[in-house]
Amino acid sequence: MVNVVVTGGAGFLGSRLARVLLAAGSLAVAGGAARPLSRVTLIDRVPVPPDLAADRRVGVIHGELAGLLDPGAAGPGAGAGSPGAGAGGPGVRDALAGAEVIFHLAAAVSGECEADFDLGMRANLRSTEALLAACRALGTRPVVVFASSLAVFGASAEHPLPAVVDDHTLPNPQTSYGTQKLIGERLLADYTRKGFLDGRAVRLMTVVVRPGRPNAAASGFLSSIIREPLNGQRATCPVSPDTEVALASPGKAIDALLCAAVSSSQTWGGRSAVTMPALTVTVADMAAALRRVAGPQADALIDWVPDPAVAAMVRTWPGRIRSDRAARMGLIPDQDFESVIRMHLAESSS
Amino acid sequence: MVNVVVTGGAGFLGSRLARVLLAAGSLAVAGGAARPLSRVTLIDRVPVPPDLAADRRVGVIHGELAGLLDPGAAGPGAGAGSPGAGAGGPGVRDALAGAEVIFHLAAAVSGECEADFDLGMRANLRSTEALLAACRALGTRPVVVFASSLAVFGASAEHPLPAVVDDHTLPNPQTSYGTQKLIGERLLADYTRKGFLDGRAVRLMTVVVRPGRPNAAASGFLSSIIREPLNGQRATCPVSPDTEVALASPGKAIDALLCAAVSSSQTWGGRSAVTMPALTVTVADMAAALRRVAGPQADALIDWVPDPAVAAMVRTWPGRIRSDRAARMGLIPDQDFESVIRMHLAESSS
Repeated sequence: MVNVVVTGGAGFLGSRLARVLLAAGSLAVAGGAARPLSRVTLIDRVPVPPDLAADRRVGVIHGELAGLLDPGAAGPGAGAGSPGAGAGGPGVRDALAGAEVIFHLAAAVSGECEADFDLGMRANLRSTEALLAACRALGTRPVVVFASSLAVFGASAEHPLPAVVDDHTLPNPQTSYGTQKLIGERLLADYTRKGFLDGRAVRLMTVVVRPGRPNAAASGFLSSIIREPLNGQRATCPVSPDTEVALASPGKAIDALLCAAVSSSQTWGGRSAVTMPALTVTVADMAAALRRVAGPQADALIDWVPDPAVAAMVRTWPGRIRSDRAARMGLIPDQDFESVIRMHLAESSS
Repeated sequence: MVNVVVTGGAGFLGSRLARVLLAAGSLAVAGGAARPLSRVTLIDRVPVPPDLAADRRVGVIHGELAGLLDPGAAGPGAGAGSPGAGAGGPGVRDALAGAEVIFHLAAAVSGECEADFDLGMRANLRSTEALLAACRALGTRPVVVFASSLAVFGASAEHPLPAVVDDHTLPNPQTSYGTQKLIGERLLADYTRKGFLDGRAVRLMTVVVRPGRPNAAASGFLSSIIREPLNGQRATCPVSPDTEVALASPGKAIDALLCAAVSSSQTWGGRSAVTMPALTVTVADMAAALRRVAGPQADALIDWVPDPAVAAMVRTWPGRIRSDRAARMGLIPDQDFESVIRMHLAESSS
């Protein structure tokens, strides 16, 4: 029997991952044989979707991860979730202690982290520090899958981005979000090296099309400019049409997270993060695909209003990715952007 | 009038830096005009040397940095020094509030961090997080010079070290110490980007010859094999004679730290860390220089006893450095290893 914990389990990716795990009903952890899934504990500060809450295999822990892991220091500005802290309050401790696999997806998104520095430091840095410290304190050596991001890559004067980011490109984040994700990767790698846990960091691409309402990610417009027009609503594109972006559909992101959990150490092949495959398109390509799928009236609902701040942040992210390591594990990019839109439509109507 | 804080101010580099600052009597901060030095506050958990304690311009704050900065959480395993914490206890807060320049040198060394994971996380990671958070809370935007290390570089399967590490080489640490130093660099860069402070990270080389007793740095033998034979004592070299190492004398390390404090932002030239210049020698070269300076009886006191654990760690550090950015600021490596030994002898006898 396998127990799993998903932080950020009520979020878009977290709840989708939980559904995939529960539907499979079993999990082959780190190259082992598949065993029945007995419990999926979702940790989140927002309520989990009703279908998940209703599943008898699902446990829910409600609260902000950093505070849950270090309840004695949960006050504003207090030292929540420091490395070396204990394994958290009883609910979280029991869930972590019983978990063979922990998917750590809880995070504040890029735009939030730029707008609210404290939020990013607490939700991304301190919560990750606290989670790793808790795993170490428990001594259970779980597989910890960490959702990192292509935002760890960035361009600076001494370190221009290569034309194609590949497995040999080292991170150089230029945002608070990217900095916090890189620190998470590095701590995970060092905890893994020391044998405290079995960490696997996956750098997710910008996930498109996200359902629901716009979020505060700087990349949020890449979903909005498809999702809103499909619903007959206007959407604003803040970058120029020739901007290249590296995308993955929700399904491909889940594939990458699952691959990290089930791969043997040998297949995973090292402590450094794996960059997942991406579909590279320009924003103009995206609009053209929207037109082909939903007609010119959809495409016409996109307002092209450049926002220099967003454009500057998006420019620091790589547009072209070559992920040989991910490809060796069988992960493949989305075929084209039309199929991404059609997948979104099929899922939205179901 | 300029006030300066030195964390780790009782240590070898910290006390030497304080002496240089006090002897100069003035400091030109970040490209400004030189102004008289009014106060140098040394923060350390060990007592400061008597000559510094006797200087009426010197203030001393005794304690461990992480605990001083977050006194409410100083218990074992507590959340000391978390980001978002306040500006620390009154003594530290007043010293930081009045400081235009903060040299952050306090750290546990590499060997200690490998042997005691908690110590490294507290002394290197949490103390740096807490110091940056305190500076931000004070709103005084000081120049913060952070002593990073060539240990941020390392070799892994996907990322072999280039033959020469230069300003375009990105870090890839393979030890806890290097990981913690890289995280410090990245947090400093992000705090600088956000305008919370003016951070300058300097990657120091292995400093040779360190006076006094051996310390727990994995690189400590590089001083021992010179210092002990000069005192007529045996010393053990745990790596093979052909091992290349990148070294700097204590004086050159101080030059680099001072350069970081006095350079204008334009001269400093970016938020990424500056790698200081290095003298590259093999350990055999070092022994030969010792023989030339002190005779074959000195050289004969080196016992060559390979220690695979130390050798493995040293191999992850780069031996060859090309520091164009540092060179543009006028920093130069030591001329040769004989002159490094002669400098040590001159200083030891004074």
